[in-house]
Amino acid sequence: MYFMAGVVRFGVSLDPDLLKRFDEIIKKRGYSNRSEAIRDLIRRLLVEEEISQPEKRVVGVISIVYDHDFNDITHKLLHIQHSQHSKVRSTMHIHLDERNCLEILVVEGKTIEIKSFAEKIQSLKGVKYSELNLFVPP
Amino acid sequence: MYFMAGVVRFGVSLDPDLLKRFDEIIKKRGYSNRSEAIRDLIRRLLVEEEISQPEKRVVGVISIVYDHDFNDITHKLLHIQHSQHSKVRSTMHIHLDERNCLEILVVEGKTIEIKSFAEKIQSLKGVKYSELNLFVPP
Amino acid sequence: MYFMAGVVRFGVSLDPDLLKRFDEIIKKRGYSNRSEAIRDLIRRLLVEEEISQPEKRVVGVISIVYDHDFNDITHKLLHIQHSQHSKVRSTMHIHLDERNCLEILVVEGKTIEIKSFAEKIQSLKGVKYSELNLFVPP
Amino acid sequence: MYFMAGVVRFGVSLDPDLLKRFDEIIKKRGYSNRSEAIRDLIRRLLVEEEISQPEKRVVGVISIVYDHDFNDITHKLLHIQHSQHSKVRSTMHIHLDERNCLEILVVEGKTIEIKSFAEKIQSLKGVKYSELNLFVPP
Repeated sequence: MYFMAGVVRFGVSLDPDLLKRFDEIIKKRGYSNRSEAIRDLIRRLLVEEEISQPEKRVVGVISIVYDHDFNDITHKLLHIQHSQHSKVRSTMHIHLDERNCLEILVVEGKTIEIKSFAEKIQSLKGVKYSELNLFVPP
Repeated sequence: MYFMAGVVRFGVSLDPDLLKRFDEIIKKRGYSNRSEAIRDLIRRLLVEEEISQPEKRVVGVISIVYDHDFNDITHKLLHIQHSQHSKVRSTMHIHLDERNCLEILVVEGKTIEIKSFAEKIQSLKGVKYSELNLFVPP
Repeated sequence: MYFMAGVVRFGVSLDPDLLKRFDEIIKKRGYSNRSEAIRDLIRRLLVEEEISQPEKRVVGVISIVYDHDFNDITHKLLHIQHSQHSKVRSTMHIHLDERNCLEILVVEGKTIEIKSFAEKIQSLKGVKYSELNLFVPP
Repeated sequence: MYFMAGVVRFGVSLDPDLLKRFDEIIKKRGYSNRSEAIRDLIRRLLVEEEISQPEKRVVGVISIVYDHDFNDITHKLLHIQHSQHSKVRSTMHIHLDERNCLEILVVEGKTIEIKSFAEKIQSLKGVKYSELNLFVPP
């Protein structure tokens, strides 16, 4: 069990009032203990730091909403994805309503490449909204 | 063609220097014209406004990274999803490396419900990182 | 010494690799020890949680850039501030260049009031850009 | 009047439903017309783009909350500011309560320098919370 073996332990000192408010919020959010919540805070800090480096290899989740009836948008989306096919790992498609689609692309590459790729997709006529999230192996 | 029929047109006045910098950035990002870029800015404003309303019905994309070897995390993730099955529209799973998985959940519900659901998933032991994006029909 | 007296101590367990990357980043950012960095992460979590509550009393820092030559913008800015004078605690003014000013307003009130006040200021003709930061007594 | 002279005008085409929701939100936020709201959206886009460039000269607003009773924090804050005095343009100080202070520093320099400076201040023991906002001449 890697979890039993590999763990390091250290102490944190806190003002009692700060600890009380921390305990309330982690209870509300459903954490089983403080270590678990602090690990999440630390991982979030690391991800923020690492995705700010342009050459860092990351995984990106690009979520777009588009109108599938708009001209040849579906063709263009496929074309742009295939031109970068080594970056696109997988996609998922959801029919939001009669006209709108939600498509989620999982992509891999350098931060700077993924951001540029996401901007290109967002700028396509017919793509109405998009979000990009970046992840590093945690 | 709804696009031909339904369009409204209005004028925008800008300082020439501001317009020059705007044109540079939309060219860099790949927009075909100013209208297209301005529509995206407006949609982003609307989404920001609407997802700040707790009772608004939204679509959420929850992306999580977790360690599938960690205890019964896969079981717990399935359990929590089935307990909210009416909210979960679809999921996608990517094997990041030997240990880590990226799982993407598309969920529907009120803003306040989706946020709370995302917090519950993030707080599960074994879930290392998560992001939530909210969308409204654009 | 409140710091000596009031402090509570608890243990955190971490994966060694995660700890190594955490140590690198806190060294880079200048923290003297892990407790100090973790306290900052916890405070950031608390502030995020609390400023999402509309009725919470907060302190806001509104930073605006505006063109002081534009019509009667300075008059309007003073007028809007005096109409809400019980909220405005203090202001600071910086001459950025020949035309542009940076003005920083420190305001107090409920989250929902401060956000609305900041939007009103941002929407004034002549105000070119603004940012709002919210703080709670830590 | 630079405003009368220098202005450029162009047309934007929008879906009527999108325009209706846009008009509602700009009315709620207090804009006098669409051009004014669109100028703000464009400026925000430009600032986002420009502050992502490490070497860009920017103005930063660093807001910190700290405990003035904590050891020699006030001395350290002054020391770190004077060591970078060419960057610090002005400061403002607010007494939040018996123990806590809000201090706002207006700084100038390259994006990468300002971010690093803000991290150093945030990492000081006694500094409980901080925010950084970056501005470019608009």
